[in-house]
Amino acid sequence: MTFPVVGMIGGGQLARMTHEAAIPLGIRFKLLSATPQDSAAQVVNDVVIGDHRDLDTLRAFAKGCDVVTFDHEHVPTEHLRALQADGIAVRPGPDALIHAQDKGVMRARLDELGVPCPRHRIVTGPADVTRFAGEGDGFPVVLKTVRGGYDGKGVWLVRSEEEAAEPFKAGVPVLAEEAVDFSRELAANVVRSPHGQAVVYPVVESVQVGGVCDTVIAPAPGLPPERALRAQEIALTIARELDVTGHLAVELFETADGRILVNELAMRPHNSGHWTQDGAVTSQFANHVRAVLDLPLGDPRPRAPWTVMANVLGGDYPDMYAAYLHCMARDPQLKIHMYGKDVRPGRKVGHVTTYGTDLADVRERARHAADYLRGTITE
Amino acid sequence: MTFPVVGMIGGGQLARMTHEAAIPLGIRFKLLSATPQDSAAQVVNDVVIGDHRDLDTLRAFAKGCDVVTFDHEHVPTEHLRALQADGIAVRPGPDALIHAQDKGVMRARLDELGVPCPRHRIVTGPADVTRFAGEGDGFPVVLKTVRGGYDGKGVWLVRSEEEAAEPFKAGVPVLAEEAVDFSRELAANVVRSPHGQAVVYPVVESVQVGGVCDTVIAPAPGLPPERALRAQEIALTIARELDVTGHLAVELFETADGRILVNELAMRPHNSGHWTQDGAVTSQFANHVRAVLDLPLGDPRPRAPWTVMANVLGGDYPDMYAAYLHCMARDPQLKIHMYGKDVRPGRKVGHVTTYGTDLADVRERARHAADYLRGTITE
Repeated sequence: MTFPVVGMIGGGQLARMTHEAAIPLGIRFKLLSATPQDSAAQVVNDVVIGDHRDLDTLRAFAKGCDVVTFDHEHVPTEHLRALQADGIAVRPGPDALIHAQDKGVMRARLDELGVPCPRHRIVTGPADVTRFAGEGDGFPVVLKTVRGGYDGKGVWLVRSEEEAAEPFKAGVPVLAEEAVDFSRELAANVVRSPHGQAVVYPVVESVQVGGVCDTVIAPAPGLPPERALRAQEIALTIARELDVTGHLAVELFETADGRILVNELAMRPHNSGHWTQDGAVTSQFANHVRAVLDLPLGDPRPRAPWTVMANVLGGDYPDMYAAYLHCMARDPQLKIHMYGKDVRPGRKVGHVTTYGTDLADVRERARHAADYLRGTITE
Repeated sequence: MTFPVVGMIGGGQLARMTHEAAIPLGIRFKLLSATPQDSAAQVVNDVVIGDHRDLDTLRAFAKGCDVVTFDHEHVPTEHLRALQADGIAVRPGPDALIHAQDKGVMRARLDELGVPCPRHRIVTGPADVTRFAGEGDGFPVVLKTVRGGYDGKGVWLVRSEEEAAEPFKAGVPVLAEEAVDFSRELAANVVRSPHGQAVVYPVVESVQVGGVCDTVIAPAPGLPPERALRAQEIALTIARELDVTGHLAVELFETADGRILVNELAMRPHNSGHWTQDGAVTSQFANHVRAVLDLPLGDPRPRAPWTVMANVLGGDYPDMYAAYLHCMARDPQLKIHMYGKDVRPGRKVGHVTTYGTDLADVRERARHAADYLRGTITE
């Protein structure tokens, strides 16, 4: 058989679920994982244990792959360029991926493209933050390290010059952004292939709790069609202009006055797209695999009027398997997706999805299962 | 984490797809495979290479499992009893599985239960076949070796005493059956758990070509509801009375005068249930895993009015991947499931599924994709 090998760098749950999606396609899947205990390394048969920051490791790994793609954005840009120079297909490529790695680069490029973003600029220290605040509506101001943040880490909401000191301690550039008075968060997800085909999923609402995605509702309830279309056009524009290959998640703010502003980009399968596993004709994972192989993309349309995804966070009880009995008996339609991770309080260890025609019911079922698995409710 | 280990014996595509279904449940999956090249061994990380006919191999494998289940029916009954005596949970157990291993035992038990079967008895030689024919409507008669047959192997349609010689050459008992003048073949699939919960899937039509399943249509078109219910009751009765755990496929003949007769039993995920991967709320693979772990079962209902599964057989062209371009571009809703097997003419190497509201369209799309992948059509 001449089936290609897709190499994924990073052993997290995104790689685990990409492997799951690659199996039916007959695509051979190879993993570079930091440890044999990582989420994906537990279920993939062809695993290389190694450090994604080491070029020799990356080169040896890539040698056995027809294309290399990513579970995370932490591979150094210069290493990706070196792999490209070796003739390796790296998807997304470093010139695209840099926009998901460096928020300063991302903001500058989106400005050039005329994509609406929160007011922003790189700031040099606490006094400069005060100046930035004065250029707009004053404090509070959002500060972000340009690299390395995720799930609320590397992000601060500061109310004064004194509070602005912390982000500068790491010695990396800091981006200041207006604290957008948003009414909710949305995500527009696109998958794009090297030959330029793109599919766009329905725009979803992402409910955040404590800076971490808690629930995703597909499609976003009550979103006016022209606003949904605008969000999808923004995502398609970014994918095209940045030459993204694979899945692109565009996290958005929706404001009370109907504006759509880009918050963050991720160039890989993304939490806001997990609902597609059970709720769309083609999942984000299957479409990511198809895209990086330059295969025609699958239908992104929803299979049910409403699909809800709720993240399962670790709680005080380490044994989530015991909770299966109740959850499965209560809701025979429930879909559980666990990552094989040890339970630690607040850690994302899985998610559930539900779908149906009654949003209130669909949402309650997802919420109940996620809370029961976590152990915050017991009936 | 306290997630259990499911051990599956046999490295074929059923194990491959069971692994795929076990990943989201966080269930640890362990495989006993004859070779590292077997379909499932290509994608499972925890693989033991060994012979399923060797008791020491089975014992060593079972030691690391919370439950042992099967990709095929070829493990000797006495070895399964030895594992049970060791305290291993074997599901289905040997007392159930014997009915899927030995057609003589199966027919005798179904007679006891009053389940309708073709007229049958064990025959001792060609002259006895002629007597059996004379007891009914004469030749032709179906002869089957009681053990070891599948996909038309081990089955003969004989028209005379001379033709009846061949089946006896292997020296194993031979079962004679009336050659049922059926109008079509159906399958009623059930999943049952040790504590006695059972779910039943919609009855499907199984279109056979040359003794091999070609297409499955879910639900069976034009099947009167009371006849579908009767088929489901037969399957539920067999599962209960034989104490089956896991997936049970009951292959059926439907006759022109509306009778439903049991043809074959399989106690594992089955080709007639592959449509459930994309067409049912819970796939046969996910429900098999849940059943052998005695977890509550998932909803077996269909997600679309019609789902069609078409097997992909090997043709003259070894490179099926090249055919993906056309198939995926032509039908973005197509679901491809390949098994990682080398292409050999006539060998089952994968299947496709399609679903929708217009049966003719759904069927044409599945047929086209299966034929294009095989190489029998080129546009």
